[in-house]
Amino acid sequence: MLLTTDARGVFPIAPTPFFEDGRIDTASVDRLTDFYLGIGATGITVLGQLGEAPKLEHAESVAVARRMIRRAAQLPVVVGVSAPGFAAMRALTHEVMTAGAAGVMIAPPHTLRSDDQIVGYYRQAVQAIGADVPFVLQDYPLTFSVQMSPGVIRRIVDELPSCVMLKHEDWPGLEKIGTLRGWEREGALRHIAILCGNGGLFLDYEMERGADGANTGYAFPDMLCDVVRLSQAGQREEAHDLFDAHLPLLRYEQQPGVGLAVRKYVLMRRGLLASASQRQPAAPLTAAARAEVDHLLQRLARRDPRALLLPV
Amino acid sequence: MLLTTDARGVFPIAPTPFFEDGRIDTASVDRLTDFYLGIGATGITVLGQLGEAPKLEHAESVAVARRMIRRAAQLPVVVGVSAPGFAAMRALTHEVMTAGAAGVMIAPPHTLRSDDQIVGYYRQAVQAIGADVPFVLQDYPLTFSVQMSPGVIRRIVDELPSCVMLKHEDWPGLEKIGTLRGWEREGALRHIAILCGNGGLFLDYEMERGADGANTGYAFPDMLCDVVRLSQAGQREEAHDLFDAHLPLLRYEQQPGVGLAVRKYVLMRRGLLASASQRQPAAPLTAAARAEVDHLLQRLARRDPRALLLPV
Amino acid sequence: MLLTTDARGVFPIAPTPFFEDGRIDTASVDRLTDFYLGIGATGITVLGQLGEAPKLEHAESVAVARRMIRRAAQLPVVVGVSAPGFAAMRALTHEVMTAGAAGVMIAPPHTLRSDDQIVGYYRQAVQAIGADVPFVLQDYPLTFSVQMSPGVIRRIVDELPSCVMLKHEDWPGLEKIGTLRGWEREGALRHIAILCGNGGLFLDYEMERGADGANTGYAFPDMLCDVVRLSQAGQREEAHDLFDAHLPLLRYEQQPGVGLAVRKYVLMRRGLLASASQRQPAAPLTAAARAEVDHLLQRLARRDPRALLLPV
Amino acid sequence: MLLTTDARGVFPIAPTPFFEDGRIDTASVDRLTDFYLGIGATGITVLGQLGEAPKLEHAESVAVARRMIRRAAQLPVVVGVSAPGFAAMRALTHEVMTAGAAGVMIAPPHTLRSDDQIVGYYRQAVQAIGADVPFVLQDYPLTFSVQMSPGVIRRIVDELPSCVMLKHEDWPGLEKIGTLRGWEREGALRHIAILCGNGGLFLDYEMERGADGANTGYAFPDMLCDVVRLSQAGQREEAHDLFDAHLPLLRYEQQPGVGLAVRKYVLMRRGLLASASQRQPAAPLTAAARAEVDHLLQRLARRDPRALLLPV
Repeated sequence: MLLTTDARGVFPIAPTPFFEDGRIDTASVDRLTDFYLGIGATGITVLGQLGEAPKLEHAESVAVARRMIRRAAQLPVVVGVSAPGFAAMRALTHEVMTAGAAGVMIAPPHTLRSDDQIVGYYRQAVQAIGADVPFVLQDYPLTFSVQMSPGVIRRIVDELPSCVMLKHEDWPGLEKIGTLRGWEREGALRHIAILCGNGGLFLDYEMERGADGANTGYAFPDMLCDVVRLSQAGQREEAHDLFDAHLPLLRYEQQPGVGLAVRKYVLMRRGLLASASQRQPAAPLTAAARAEVDHLLQRLARRDPRALLLPV
Repeated sequence: MLLTTDARGVFPIAPTPFFEDGRIDTASVDRLTDFYLGIGATGITVLGQLGEAPKLEHAESVAVARRMIRRAAQLPVVVGVSAPGFAAMRALTHEVMTAGAAGVMIAPPHTLRSDDQIVGYYRQAVQAIGADVPFVLQDYPLTFSVQMSPGVIRRIVDELPSCVMLKHEDWPGLEKIGTLRGWEREGALRHIAILCGNGGLFLDYEMERGADGANTGYAFPDMLCDVVRLSQAGQREEAHDLFDAHLPLLRYEQQPGVGLAVRKYVLMRRGLLASASQRQPAAPLTAAARAEVDHLLQRLARRDPRALLLPV
Repeated sequence: MLLTTDARGVFPIAPTPFFEDGRIDTASVDRLTDFYLGIGATGITVLGQLGEAPKLEHAESVAVARRMIRRAAQLPVVVGVSAPGFAAMRALTHEVMTAGAAGVMIAPPHTLRSDDQIVGYYRQAVQAIGADVPFVLQDYPLTFSVQMSPGVIRRIVDELPSCVMLKHEDWPGLEKIGTLRGWEREGALRHIAILCGNGGLFLDYEMERGADGANTGYAFPDMLCDVVRLSQAGQREEAHDLFDAHLPLLRYEQQPGVGLAVRKYVLMRRGLLASASQRQPAAPLTAAARAEVDHLLQRLARRDPRALLLPV
Repeated sequence: MLLTTDARGVFPIAPTPFFEDGRIDTASVDRLTDFYLGIGATGITVLGQLGEAPKLEHAESVAVARRMIRRAAQLPVVVGVSAPGFAAMRALTHEVMTAGAAGVMIAPPHTLRSDDQIVGYYRQAVQAIGADVPFVLQDYPLTFSVQMSPGVIRRIVDELPSCVMLKHEDWPGLEKIGTLRGWEREGALRHIAILCGNGGLFLDYEMERGADGANTGYAFPDMLCDVVRLSQAGQREEAHDLFDAHLPLLRYEQQPGVGLAVRKYVLMRRGLLASASQRQPAAPLTAAARAEVDHLLQRLARRDPRALLLPV
C-alpha cells in the first residue's frame, strides 16, 4: 500500500514514547497506534521532527517504524527519513519500505537558499532513495530556514513524479495553498495531496483554501479529524466552533522548543503515553507551565468533554 | 515626562496611517491617538517594526512622532529609533526627545550572536543616544534573529541604568518572564518594566507570570486593556474568556508579513484609519484573506460587540 | 555621464575618511579622489558597505558623494544607496543623481530567500528610484546572506534594463562568471559589466573567466589596476606574479569585521588618509595586528616598491 | 593513548577516499595514513566536516576510523562524531574509543545562539559520550553559524575537564587566540591545545599568536608541518616564505563548497588518492577549475618541488 496523491484526512505525527530512563516504551507505541486507528485517522507519520527522530539510533528508528506499520495494518504509514547525508537517508528508506511503509517524508537541510539548490537537493534525494518510493515534501521554513515559493514546489512536482504530497507548514501559508490549487485548476500543475502541519494552527481556513487535511501532532488528533470531517461536510461554523475551543491549548502547544513537552504531557494525561519523558536534549515542562496546561485543559473541558481528564 | 521602570498597562504600537497614494494621513494619526487615550492606554509606542518605520524619510518620522507626542499630551510616547547605524539613531533620538518623547525603543541588528556582542551593541547605542535617554530593550528573536538569554538581559540591565523596560516578544517566552522576576525577588536584578509584544499571543499567561502589561499592535487594543485590567484585578477566568474570544482573529493577525495588512484592514473597518494602505514594499491582503478576516470579525462579534462592524 | 554596460577596469570602493573625533575629513576625500584618478581607475564607488555608509547621516552621505563626484569630474561615480526602506533609497538616489552620479549600487536585504523574493525586491527598488537610473546589482552572500543563482541574476537582467553591472562577490564565484558569460555568448543573456569584489581575492582567475575588472577596496588599488591591465594585455604570468606578491596582505585585509581597520591603516601608512579612524561601532586594530600588517608590508616591499613605506 | 592538552604539531584532517562508484577505497585510506606518518604529522583527525562524514553509514564510519587507528598505531587519531542527535553521537563515540581512538571532535549544531545554549549543548554532549572521553571543541562559525566568544570557550573549558583542545577556525580569529593565551598566562584559564583549521589560511600568524599547530586538510599537509616546525624553531621569515608560496593554491582550495573537490584532485595528482571522487551530493570540479588548479600547481612548483607533479 503506497502513498498516493489521493491522500486526505488526518495523518497524525506520532511522538516516540520513552520511559523515564530513556528506553523506548513499545506498549505506548501500540496504544497510540490503536488510538489513531480508533479516531478515524487516515494514515500515520512516524519519526518526524517532533518524533525525536535524531535522538534514535538507526536500529531503534527501524524498530519503531516497523512496529507501527505492522499494527496499523490497514493505514498507510509515512516515515521521516531526513538526514544530514544521503547514505543514512537511503539506508533508512530501504529498511522501512521493505517493512511496508507507504512512503517517506523528506525535509530540506537548512543550508539551501536558491530555488536551484532546493530543486537540486530533492533531485539527488530521489536518486538516493529510488524513484519508486513515494515521498512527502516538507515545507517548514520556521524550523528549517528554507523558503519554498510556490514556483519551486511546482518545479519539484513537475520534475519528480514520486512527490505525492506536500506537508504544508509555511507561515503564513494560506495564499500558498490557494496558488497551488489555482495552478492545478488551470492545468498548470498536477494534483498532489496537501496536508497541513504547524500543529494545526490554521487548519480551519486551510481546509477552506483547498487543503486535503492535517498532518500534525496536536495532542487531540481526534479534534483534527472532526474539524476535517466537518469542513469536508460543509458544516463550516461547527468546524470553527470546535477548532476555536481548542485554539488556546493548541497555540500553547505550538510554542517552538517547549511544544513537544506540552504535547507529551497532554498525551500522558489522556492515558495514551505512560510517561511524558523525552530523550536528552529536552526542554522540561516547569511546574508553572504544567499548571497552565492543566488550566487550559479545564477550560477546554467545558466545551469538549474529551479534555475532561482525571486529576494527576 | 520620561519613561520609568514603573511603566505598566498597555502601550499600543501605533501603525503609521497612509493614504492610497502613500502620503501620511495625519487625520488618522490624530484619530488613533484619541482612540488610545479613550480606551485607557497608559502610553503609546510609535515607529516600531510594524509602524513601517524604515519606509519613512527622516523628516517624516520626526513629524509623525511629534504630532502624536503633542496630541497625547498626558501619555508617555516611546519612539522606535532602531537603525542600521548609530548616526541615524542618535539624530532621531535627539529630535524626538527634544519634542517630548518619553523614551526610545532599540531593536538589535540581526548580525549579533554572542552575549558579548549583544551587550556591546547596547553599550554603544547608549553612548550614541546619551545615558539620560530612557530606552526600551526589544527582545524579538523571531524577527531579528537575535536570541537574548535571561543572563544577557541581566547584564544589560545591570550595566545600563537607562534601560527601563523590556519589550518582551521572545517565543516561547513565559519562562523568561518567570526567570527575570525570580531574580528580581531574590535581589539579583533591579526592577524593570516588562510589557509584552508578539501581538499579545500569550498575554493571558504572561500577566500571570509577572508581566506589567502589553506593548503590541493588535487591532483591538481595547481588549488588551481589558485583559490587563481584569488580570491585575484578579478576575482570572473573565480575563481568559475575553482573551479566548479574540484569539482566532489575534492568531490570524499574528502571521509574519501579512499581519500588518490584516491589522490595518481591521483598524479601517473600525473607523480608525481612513485607508488600510501600506507603503511599498507591502504584502497585500487578497480577497480570500479579506473574506476570512470578515468571517473572524463576525464570529468575534457574537462575544465582543466591539467587533460588530458595519458592512464595507 | 551615466554608467553603462561597457564599464570595465577598476572602480575602487572609496572608504569614508574620518578624523579621530568622528568628523569627516574632506581633505582626505579629495586626496583619495586624486589618487584614484592618478592610478588609472576607470570609476569610483562611494558609500559602499565598507564606506561605513550606515554610520553617516543623510546630509553627510550626500555631501561626501557630491564632493567626490565634482572632483572626479572625468570618472563615473557610483553611489551605494542600500537602505532598510525604499523611502531613504529613493531620497538618496535622487540627490546623488542630481549631483551627477553615474549610477547607484543596491545590495539585497538579508531577509530575501527565494528567487521570487529577490527578483521582486529589485523590481520594487527600480520602481522606487526610477527606471532611468542605472544600477549595480551587488551579489555578496557572505555579508548579506542572500544567495543569487545565475538564473535569478538572469531574471533581474532580463526584466530590468537599468541593471547595467554586476558587483560580483559570491564565494565561490568563478563558475558563476563562466555561466553568465556562457549565456551571453549563446545569446541567452544581454551583456552586463561584471566587476569583482571580495577584496580582489580571486581577481587573478576572475579576469580569465570573463570579468571586466575589479570593484573593491583593497588598499593597493594601483595593484588591482595593474593586474587588470596585464590580464587584458594577455601577460598572464606577470599578472599572477604581481597578484601573488600582494596575496598575503590582501588575504589579511579580507578578514570580515577587522578588514576595514587594516585597510584604513594601510591607506594612512601610504599617506592617503590623515587618520585610520572609523566611526563607532568599529573593530579597533590591536597592537599585535598592526605589527602583523607592518610585517606584511615589509615583506611585500621586497617585490612591490609601492609597499616601501616610511616608519610610523 | 588519549588526547591531552599537550597536543601540538599537525593533525591533518583526512578525507575519505572513494572509488568512482562510491565504494570506500581502503587502499587509499592506508596510503594516506602512511603518508601522514611519513611527513611528521603528530596526529590525524578523521570523519571531519570535509571527510564527508554525513555521507557514510554508521558501519562505514566505524570501519574507516578503525582502519586508520590501527594503521597509525603510534599516532593519536581523533574522530569527528558530530551528529544531529546524541544517540548517534554516543554510539559512534563508544565504538571508536573502544577501537582505540584518542578522542572525538564535536561541532555545534547550527541552531545554537546564546552563550547559555552553547555551554548547555556541550554539557549535554559530555553527558552523552562520557566525561572520560577527551573531546575537541570545534569553533567554525563560517560553516556552523555558531559564534563562540572567548568567554563562552572559557566557560566550556572551566566546566568540562574533558575538553582538551580547541579546533580554532573562527574568522577573523587571531585576536581570539591572543585573548585565550592571555587568560592562560594570567591564570584565568587552564591550558588547552589550540590547533588551527580554516585550511591553514592564517597559520603563519596563528603560530605567532600562540597556536600549537594546525588541524586542517590542505592538500600539502607536509607544508603545514614545515611551517609549524619553522615557526616553533624561530625561523620566522623562512616559515612565511614557504607559506606564501602555497597561499595562492591554499586560498583556492579554501573556497566553501568546491574546496573539497580541489583538495581531492590535488591529493590524487600527488598519488595519494586513487580517485578524486566524492559521494553525492558533491560539487564537481569543472574543466576550467581543473585547469586553474594545474596552473597553480605549476606556479607553486617553481618554489616548492613537492608540487612538481607528473602530467595527468
